Amino acid sequence: MENLQTKLFAKLQEKEAEMIQIRRHFHESPELSFQETKTAQYIAAFYEDKACDIQTNVGGGNGILVDIHGGKKGPTLAIRADFDALPIQEETELPFSSKIPGVMHACGHDGHTAYMMVLAASLIELKEELAGTIRVIHQPAEEVPPGGAKGMIEAGCLDGVENVLGIHVMSTMPLGDVLYHKGPVHTGRASFKVALKGKGGHGSTPQDANDTIVAAAQFVTAIQTIVSRRINPFDTATVTIGSFDGKGSSNVIKDTVTLEGDVRMMKEETREIVEKEFRQIVEGISHTFGLTYELTYENDYPVCVNDEKVTEMVANALQEAAIPEMKNLVECGPQTPSEDFSYYAKERPSCFFFVGAHKEGTPMYPHHHPKFYIDEACLMIAAKSMASAVVYYLSKGV
Amino acid sequence: MENLQTKLFAKLQEKEAEMIQIRRHFHESPELSFQETKTAQYIAAFYEDKACDIQTNVGGGNGILVDIHGGKKGPTLAIRADFDALPIQEETELPFSSKIPGVMHACGHDGHTAYMMVLAASLIELKEELAGTIRVIHQPAEEVPPGGAKGMIEAGCLDGVENVLGIHVMSTMPLGDVLYHKGPVHTGRASFKVALKGKGGHGSTPQDANDTIVAAAQFVTAIQTIVSRRINPFDTATVTIGSFDGKGSSNVIKDTVTLEGDVRMMKEETREIVEKEFRQIVEGISHTFGLTYELTYENDYPVCVNDEKVTEMVANALQEAAIPEMKNLVECGPQTPSEDFSYYAKERPSCFFFVGAHKEGTPMYPHHHPKFYIDEACLMIAAKSMASAVVYYLSKGV
Amino acid sequence: MENLQTKLFAKLQEKEAEMIQIRRHFHESPELSFQETKTAQYIAAFYEDKACDIQTNVGGGNGILVDIHGGKKGPTLAIRADFDALPIQEETELPFSSKIPGVMHACGHDGHTAYMMVLAASLIELKEELAGTIRVIHQPAEEVPPGGAKGMIEAGCLDGVENVLGIHVMSTMPLGDVLYHKGPVHTGRASFKVALKGKGGHGSTPQDANDTIVAAAQFVTAIQTIVSRRINPFDTATVTIGSFDGKGSSNVIKDTVTLEGDVRMMKEETREIVEKEFRQIVEGISHTFGLTYELTYENDYPVCVNDEKVTEMVANALQEAAIPEMKNLVECGPQTPSEDFSYYAKERPSCFFFVGAHKEGTPMYPHHHPKFYIDEACLMIAAKSMASAVVYYLSKGV
Amino acid sequence: MENLQTKLFAKLQEKEAEMIQIRRHFHESPELSFQETKTAQYIAAFYEDKACDIQTNVGGGNGILVDIHGGKKGPTLAIRADFDALPIQEETELPFSSKIPGVMHACGHDGHTAYMMVLAASLIELKEELAGTIRVIHQPAEEVPPGGAKGMIEAGCLDGVENVLGIHVMSTMPLGDVLYHKGPVHTGRASFKVALKGKGGHGSTPQDANDTIVAAAQFVTAIQTIVSRRINPFDTATVTIGSFDGKGSSNVIKDTVTLEGDVRMMKEETREIVEKEFRQIVEGISHTFGLTYELTYENDYPVCVNDEKVTEMVANALQEAAIPEMKNLVECGPQTPSEDFSYYAKERPSCFFFVGAHKEGTPMYPHHHPKFYIDEACLMIAAKSMASAVVYYLSKGV
Repeated sequence: MENLQTKLFAKLQEKEAEMIQIRRHFHESPELSFQETKTAQYIAAFYEDKACDIQTNVGGGNGILVDIHGGKKGPTLAIRADFDALPIQEETELPFSSKIPGVMHACGHDGHTAYMMVLAASLIELKEELAGTIRVIHQPAEEVPPGGAKGMIEAGCLDGVENVLGIHVMSTMPLGDVLYHKGPVHTGRASFKVALKGKGGHGSTPQDANDTIVAAAQFVTAIQTIVSRRINPFDTATVTIGSFDGKGSSNVIKDTVTLEGDVRMMKEETREIVEKEFRQIVEGISHTFGLTYELTYENDYPVCVNDEKVTEMVANALQEAAIPEMKNLVECGPQTPSEDFSYYAKERPSCFFFVGAHKEGTPMYPHHHPKFYIDEACLMIAAKSMASAVVYYLSKGV
Repeated sequence: MENLQTKLFAKLQEKEAEMIQIRRHFHESPELSFQETKTAQYIAAFYEDKACDIQTNVGGGNGILVDIHGGKKGPTLAIRADFDALPIQEETELPFSSKIPGVMHACGHDGHTAYMMVLAASLIELKEELAGTIRVIHQPAEEVPPGGAKGMIEAGCLDGVENVLGIHVMSTMPLGDVLYHKGPVHTGRASFKVALKGKGGHGSTPQDANDTIVAAAQFVTAIQTIVSRRINPFDTATVTIGSFDGKGSSNVIKDTVTLEGDVRMMKEETREIVEKEFRQIVEGISHTFGLTYELTYENDYPVCVNDEKVTEMVANALQEAAIPEMKNLVECGPQTPSEDFSYYAKERPSCFFFVGAHKEGTPMYPHHHPKFYIDEACLMIAAKSMASAVVYYLSKGV
Repeated sequence: MENLQTKLFAKLQEKEAEMIQIRRHFHESPELSFQETKTAQYIAAFYEDKACDIQTNVGGGNGILVDIHGGKKGPTLAIRADFDALPIQEETELPFSSKIPGVMHACGHDGHTAYMMVLAASLIELKEELAGTIRVIHQPAEEVPPGGAKGMIEAGCLDGVENVLGIHVMSTMPLGDVLYHKGPVHTGRASFKVALKGKGGHGSTPQDANDTIVAAAQFVTAIQTIVSRRINPFDTATVTIGSFDGKGSSNVIKDTVTLEGDVRMMKEETREIVEKEFRQIVEGISHTFGLTYELTYENDYPVCVNDEKVTEMVANALQEAAIPEMKNLVECGPQTPSEDFSYYAKERPSCFFFVGAHKEGTPMYPHHHPKFYIDEACLMIAAKSMASAVVYYLSKGV
Repeated sequence: MENLQTKLFAKLQEKEAEMIQIRRHFHESPELSFQETKTAQYIAAFYEDKACDIQTNVGGGNGILVDIHGGKKGPTLAIRADFDALPIQEETELPFSSKIPGVMHACGHDGHTAYMMVLAASLIELKEELAGTIRVIHQPAEEVPPGGAKGMIEAGCLDGVENVLGIHVMSTMPLGDVLYHKGPVHTGRASFKVALKGKGGHGSTPQDANDTIVAAAQFVTAIQTIVSRRINPFDTATVTIGSFDGKGSSNVIKDTVTLEGDVRMMKEETREIVEKEFRQIVEGISHTFGLTYELTYENDYPVCVNDEKVTEMVANALQEAAIPEMKNLVECGPQTPSEDFSYYAKERPSCFFFVGAHKEGTPMYPHHHPKFYIDEACLMIAAKSMASAVVYYLSKGV
């Protein structure tokens, strides 16, 4: 194994400049979720003359599957990288800043795809030494519900696959750290939209109207009790109303107010409690104030649960790999955001882990920020981390 | 008429000391609503040897009716005085303070009854000159719903009666003023009691309980919108929650909270709106928080509406009477409290008016205060005011 | 007097077609408040060759004053008509519908100005018979604070004027009715804008943000207690939050929410109470939730108070005038909207009264509605009503 | 070691009847926190003729320390049992039910003390074989802040002690299970009492009063946002208002409302956040509604944190001990209640663990319930569990 890993690391090292160039290409040319056609073409073209099986337009969209058949028998491991960008106007002053107004790779997916492509190319070059099959999942649309993973799975991307691994580069974690957590690692999510409908009128005659702003205010207040009183204090839940659309004229009573928000949780039971209480509060407040309502409540990403054994395998692989650029291997605890890798993890024992990208002494910007920034040295760490896990998996199993 | 009024004023003047003595007797011996047996006996004894018809125990309680048949034909006018006291511990230092612990004539009903008795005695003495019948209504239980008036009316106290007059002495209005208002003069009232029932539990595990204090707080908040948003801004309504019974232990979630309150309004339509909205909010908030509830909502005193013409008659009588102690005749506008005289006013065109009792330069205490105080000079003004109205009514009609 | 009134009515009758034509011209060509340049030019042109003094561009804007000097000595009476339109897209199907997209005479000011112009022309023709001066105030910008009246007064439009009269045609009152109310007739007004400023963040990490939607909801709820608990139940107040601008993304915590609203009252003391409480609640809620805020609170239109005697004069004039089209003269009570005629009424004893414009059996639309409609027969009633009041005033005084 | 443990288990087995008898004695004679004089005398008498050092009246109260000096050198380990009862009227029908009205051992402290006494007696009999010192802490007043532990520690009960162990029998955990958790195992606690002071008045004139029930309702609502918006969703906090003392008359506006409640958390940083926010909300709501307030906010029990190594030692000891009655050794996760053992754990690396007491198929009642019940078989399991931990500790250390 050491031998294979050493060769693989060497291949990656050779391709470092290419990796950076690919990442910068994607960074300049970001595409929104479910619209990543050029990105997908670029990826497909990369594999065209390589010794692998490639499927494009997977999952009714821009998904790509690349199968690398090892020279020896063994299990099938999927490794996943996502490639969509966000509706954000970039405010960095990077020479390779986004050329697309209002669209930006502000979550690092450009890096995920770049490291994955050169890792795949390296694995293809060494494929005779691999004891099993590696399926590279190039996934679109991670950022937007229902998430690209769902369609990929429905299209069969996990057929024959035993386990799945994924990495996220993290702008807020130290460069040199590789981080993992066993069990629930990313929150599950639901989102809602509720329109409360009363009756408009003039501000001086409230009795002839039915004021939805007043009712919606009570609704927002009532919603707080879900987290404060209905959830086990040892469990995790948030209910955020991110949008209260009640703009109008100062002297006119609003006939409709529309609220939008989202819900996060770390257990599927919590999801059920929140939804039940939420629906009950919408009904109850509407009745209280004599309103009608329209409610859309959608459960999207599941809780992302890292399999104990697969995560242990990844941790062991990283421990043994002695990646020169990796300074610390850290148990980082769960993370509040959600991630559609959760769909794979629901279907197969999987592990989603993190590679730090923040260089000490530089400004730190969170993901989805217009100045989001990762130190590109993280890409090689990601590539070698995933390489180590692949090699360990194929030789020693879970 | 002038002649009769002059004689009547003279009679009253003769009996001034007796009037004060009667008032002080009642003040020392107050009795709570629906329990005024000794007061009733005292009144009945007063009339025993007088030339009038007397009925006792009227209205299933302590009511007394005294009919004074005039020597000439004419209409029947009822004049009403109430005689119950309040559950208040007197804190004046009057020599004739209440001898009954926790019971006090803190609303002036002792004065109403005293002036009415000497006025009735005077009218009896002059009865041959009266062109009609005067029915004196000595009414118990004005302070407590459903109010003594209701029972008196059900017992027939208005049979044959064409109009009703009543006076309230007012500790907060200037001595020397006699005051009236045409139309709605006292608020109508409803009262409610609502128990919200959830599930008790330990403060550290709210998810296993259902916190009624939190739900009741939202209820109190929602109730504010009845007055702020459902009532015509030109109309009058109050909804007060006077009692929030949620006492418990700091670390135990309450399973039940009981709220009590009352409602005032100046129109019967307003009464209906408030009740409808109140019931809707109880239902809605209970549903919102998954509670059950028990609600008692009782409409008691009607809005007290002074008949335009009868009130005009009273104002004219007072204007013409030239009562020496009366300095001003004032249109005072409506009053926020409620009054069970409203039941008479609902059945017959009536007028309820006010006699000021606050002497300038002395401390002023509101009705129902432990230091409630009226200047006794107001009693003669009340007696002469009512005397004037009676004489005017019998001679000139409405 | 009868003679003069008869002549005046005859003049008006002659000009009926012209009046309708003028009204329809304005209706087709509405202009927004403070932008009514063409309307003002049209009015000015009308008076150009007439025997009156005309001042244009009065009050820093489009105001016009027309003085009609009577042949005999007498007092100066101002009669006012407003001429601005509203930012509403007309939805009637009238042949003379608005030709200006998004602008509409939806409050009847076109009618006010039309009847006033032909009335003024008629008065000019009869001016030798008038004992005094009539000042016609053609006022812009009634709909938008600070209101055109303010600037007109500052420019001296009331100099030498003893009293002011004004009429509003009412789409919701029956055609044939002329209506008035003594004392406070239109609410005073204040308006506010408050921005609550917290800290944005991701919905899954509320502890790192400071959620202004939640705080603003509590603010809206707290504001209800001003009307429900701080105002005398016999007084009038409304506090409406007409705009809650909190639109955002479902999973992003809003850093700022902006609320706008208005306040109505019938007494200046009420105005003070509301403002004091409002400011206290803004401060208190901001402190409660650790927010900063920006508050603009502007008192604009005063309560419009009709002088008792001037209103009595108008009522008497209407009573005596026997206007054939007027079926009822009605005491209508106060009206909830505000009106910048209040500025004149604050400076001079004045009367603002109403002419019904709704024909029985036709659909009724309130003022400011896209289908707002008045029966044009109301214009002659308005003209004759004002004519009667002018004639009565000049001959008999207040 | 096996030898010592075997002997110790045999001693315990001999004393089983005595242990049950002691427990039942305490159960019949419960005493409230800080008043446990007879219980303390009974315990002290038990040790009187035994080969140990005994200190009574420790910590300014009823605390007892028993030192058992081993025949060989070694560390000093404290083992703690609490002995106070609760203000609850027992509703079991046990033959040894409480004879003290309104006082009950409804939390199992009778059992803790009983097992500890026979364990101590057994250890004394075998003391020559012990390599170190065992300090038995018989602690009063666990149930009531500030908790008996605090005073015991101030009185020096931990002087010379290296580690502390404690057990709680659990009526809601299965008999046969012994359970533990590394790290934070019991919540910390704070309690508060806040009186909001406004101005009383009559329900029909709210403008002359300042309604504290309305303000307190908004306060309760605002308090919910501490947990819903200010706490990291991965952390634990509860804020319960257990008492809302606002009882009054339906038509009288309350001048004062008093709220009491408590706070739980699993981190000391959380404690600070909650207190800061709580105080800010009290200030802010008081300002919002023009109230004054009196606030007492007391931090009492710390978070109870089990030391990783000491807990590992206990788990190992239990694993090796092969206690016949113990069926499962379970990592049970943290528990929401608070426990004043936390004071010891703050001073010394310690472990507090649990012994199940609920026999399958019997009704289950939570702690502090009037029907609280433990299967007495749990006492031997507790005795042997603690015995195993003592033996392991003295022979192998942490």
